[in-house]
Parts: sequence; C-alpha cells; structure tokens
Amino acid sequence: MFSMQPIGFVESPYQNTQEIPKGLGAKHEAEGALKILPEFEPGLTDIEGFSHLIVIWAFDRAEGFCLVGTPPSDNRPHGVFATRSPRRPNPIGLTVVELLGREGPVLRVRGVDMLEGTPILDIKPYLSNIPPERLRRGWLAEAEARNGMKP
Amino acid sequence: MFSMQPIGFVESPYQNTQEIPKGLGAKHEAEGALKILPEFEPGLTDIEGFSHLIVIWAFDRAEGFCLVGTPPSDNRPHGVFATRSPRRPNPIGLTVVELLGREGPVLRVRGVDMLEGTPILDIKPYLSNIPPERLRRGWLAEAEARNGMKP
Repeated sequence: MFSMQPIGFVESPYQNTQEIPKGLGAKHEAEGALKILPEFEPGLTDIEGFSHLIVIWAFDRAEGFCLVGTPPSDNRPHGVFATRSPRRPNPIGLTVVELLGREGPVLRVRGVDMLEGTPILDIKPYLSNIPPERLRRGWLAEAEARNGMKP
Repeated sequence: MFSMQPIGFVESPYQNTQEIPKGLGAKHEAEGALKILPEFEPGLTDIEGFSHLIVIWAFDRAEGFCLVGTPPSDNRPHGVFATRSPRRPNPIGLTVVELLGREGPVLRVRGVDMLEGTPILDIKPYLSNIPPERLRRGWLAEAEARNGMKP
C-alpha cells in the first residue's frame, strides 16, 4: 500500500460533477488554479517555462470502483482502464492543463475539469506528443464516427 | 491521506536505475509488460483499441523527496514539479507506452522506463495531443539548444 498526501488543492468553477462538461466533444476550457501548499512551493521553480502541465489528483468524492461501465461518451460498456471513469481501483485523476501564469504557490491554468477543492497529488511537465499518425483511439474514435464527428 | 494499492506489476528489462536511459535525447524503446492482477482483468475490456496508454505507477524504490534538484538532462537545478525526478512528495511515476498486444491480463508494451517489479497504480487511454504550435518545453528546450539539439 502507498499513502499519498495532497500537495495542494484545485480552485475550480465546478462545485458538483453535473456541472463538468462530459460526453463526446466536451470541451474543457474552464479557468482555475492549482494552489500548492507553501511548504512545496520551491518544487515549482522554473515551471513557468512550460506551456502545459500534467496534473495528477485524487477523485476524493468518488465511491468505490466499477471495472466495467458505460462512459458518458458512449452507449456501450468498456473496461475502466480504457476510460477516464472516476470509479477506479485507485481513485487517481489526470488532467493536462495550460499554464497561464504563476503567482508564488498559485498556478493559474486553463482546462480544469476537476471539482472545487480537489486534492492535487503531483504535477509534471508535459514534454512530448505521440506522433498523430501512430495514435489510435479505440472505442472513442468509433463512438465519434457513429455520431458523425470527424476524427 | 489516500491509500493506493497495486493493480499489477511491470515486467521490465531493467533491474536497477543505472540501466535506464537518461538525459538529453534518451530514447525509451524497451519492450516489457504490464501484468495486471487477475481480479482487475475485466477493467482491461476494449483496451486493445488504443495504440498508447498512460501508465501511472509508484517509485517504490525512491527514498524521500527533494524539492529542487539537478536532473540528468541538465546541469542546472529545477523544481521537482518541473522535472520527472523520482524523488517527489508523492512517489508517482507516469509513462506513456505503446500497446503491442494483450494476452488476458498481460499487456505487452513498448517504451518501458520503469524497473522490474514496479507497482502499477492505474492505466488510462491516451486520447489526444497538445497542438505542437502551442507546446513550450521550458528548461528542457533550453538545455537541448545549449547542446546543439534541434527542437
């Protein structure tokens, strides 16, 4: 077992999960902040140079897990490890955000899809993309095609 | 505090950290496997459709953390949240791997940079890239430029 502690908390416009855009074509453009605890602020040194950050956080309001479920973006069930479902064996969430600015221990970001007060476990710099010609998106691409969305 | 349990373990050619390619231009092409525990196998349903997976794992052999340190890819210190250092407040690692195939609860993958036996905490599908024209890579791009590497 591994014990994880928050390094900070998300400031988000979303107070409950119903407010978060979901499903096919959902856009995450909401602005918010990553408020890092003062004792961890030195760990942010030089983070301003990166345009995008990977935020790893805890689904602190999810209860239990469900190995197979139907996501909002499809009408067919899929395995939890092939989805971004909150009901995971370890309640770990991941969001790539755009870094807009930093004021001390506070990172202003765009692309928040977490709830207000979500505990942050880690932040990593976003370093590279997968070459688009090599990327396959499985059931999500199929669901998009069935709904007339372009790849 | 959040308690996390392994959902499986990494099969890797690397027995110790010295064997893992590091530093500027390091390539991670090693093949290995994600061996998921039998009780979580239903969670892999439909994962075969994705070419790339995000693996979240535990740095189970890292000791303590260091908020500012000099990474193998530079000769200057940076904050831990601006690097992929193993010595993090929460010892969470993240690797994007290419999925080569699946046999039951075993995912054969390329791009392993974890040690043999590393505990896996979560797997998520890799869904989208950041538009390259909007991606800035901070100190890493500067270190590459100082070493004559192309962006």
